[in-house]
Amino acid sequence: MENDNTLRRLKTVEGHLRGVIRMVEEDTYCIDVIRQIQAIEGALNKVSSIILEDHLNSCVITAIQGSDKKERERVLKEITEVFEMSAKV
Amino acid sequence: MENDNTLRRLKTVEGHLRGVIRMVEEDTYCIDVIRQIQAIEGALNKVSSIILEDHLNSCVITAIQGSDKKERERVLKEITEVFEMSAKV
Amino acid sequence: MENDNTLRRLKTVEGHLRGVIRMVEEDTYCIDVIRQIQAIEGALNKVSSIILEDHLNSCVITAIQGSDKKERERVLKEITEVFEMSAKV
Amino acid sequence: MENDNTLRRLKTVEGHLRGVIRMVEEDTYCIDVIRQIQAIEGALNKVSSIILEDHLNSCVITAIQGSDKKERERVLKEITEVFEMSAKV
Repeated sequence: MENDNTLRRLKTVEGHLRGVIRMVEEDTYCIDVIRQIQAIEGALNKVSSIILEDHLNSCVITAIQGSDKKERERVLKEITEVFEMSAKV
Repeated sequence: MENDNTLRRLKTVEGHLRGVIRMVEEDTYCIDVIRQIQAIEGALNKVSSIILEDHLNSCVITAIQGSDKKERERVLKEITEVFEMSAKV
Repeated sequence: MENDNTLRRLKTVEGHLRGVIRMVEEDTYCIDVIRQIQAIEGALNKVSSIILEDHLNSCVITAIQGSDKKERERVLKEITEVFEMSAKV
Repeated sequence: MENDNTLRRLKTVEGHLRGVIRMVEEDTYCIDVIRQIQAIEGALNKVSSIILEDHLNSCVITAIQGSDKKERERVLKEITEVFEMSAKV
C-alpha cells in the first residue's frame, strides 16, 4: 500500500474530524457542521480511491497473472463490491 | 458485455423514468417524485455494478494478462476513475 | 412544482438514457457506458434538488406557518428522509 | 443542536478512524481498509441526518415563522445546498 500518502491524508482527516467535534461542542451553526462533515466525506472518498488504485496495481495484477482461478475471482468480486458500496455511502 | 441482463434492467429504468415524467405532469406530491428518482438512481447503480463486474472478468483480465503495459495501466486507471466518480453521483 | 424546468430536464434524461440503451445494444466499451450512466445520475440529482427547492418554498412554508403540528412534523420528517436517502443512491 | 447524541456518534467515528489509521500502519489488506472507510462514511451520513433533523425542527421553523423574508430564503437555500452536496460525497 502506498502507505505514506494514505496515512498523511487519514491523519489530516482525523484533525478535521476533531475540529468538527469542537464545532459541535461550541454549538456552531448546524449547517456549517454538516458542510464540514461533507468535506470529510469527500476527503475519505479520495483516500479510498488512492488505496484502490494501489491495490489494482499490486494485488490485482498479481492475482490475475497468477494461476489460482479462485483467487482471481475473489479479487475481482471485491472490486465490484466496493464499487457498489461506494455509491451507497 | 452481459448484454441481456443489462438491457433488460435499463429498459425497466426507462419505464420507471417515464412514470416519473407522468408524475410530474400530473403534479404529484414533490417528495414522492424525489423518492422515485432516488429509486431510479439505485437501479442505475446496480446496472453500473453489473457492467463493471462483466468488464473486470473480460477486458481487464485480457489487458492484465497481455503484454502491453500501457494498455494495462489505462484499463486500471479507468477502474479507479469510475470508482471515484461513483462516490460523487 | 416548477413543472416546466423539471419536465424539460427529465425528458433530456430520458433521451440520454435511450442513448445509453443504444450504446449497450451496439456493444460500446463498458467503461464508456458506466460513465454515461454516472452522467445520468448526476442529472437526476440536479432534478431532485430543483424539486426539493421548490417544495421547500411552497409546501414546507405552508405547513410550518400552518396550525397543524402533526402536518408540520410530517413535512419536516420527509426532508430528513430524502436527505438521508440521497447519500445512499 | 441535539449535542449529546451527535457528539457521542462523532467520537465513535473518531475511534473508528483511529482504528483505520492503525490498519494502514500495519499494512492491512487494502480492500478491508476501504470497507472500513466506507463504514465511517455511512456513520458520518447518519450524523449529518441527525443534525439536519434537529436544524429543521429549530432554526428552520423559527426562520419560516419569523417575519424576515431574506432570512427565510437563506435558511431554505441552505437546505437545498446540503441536499445537493450530499449526493456528491
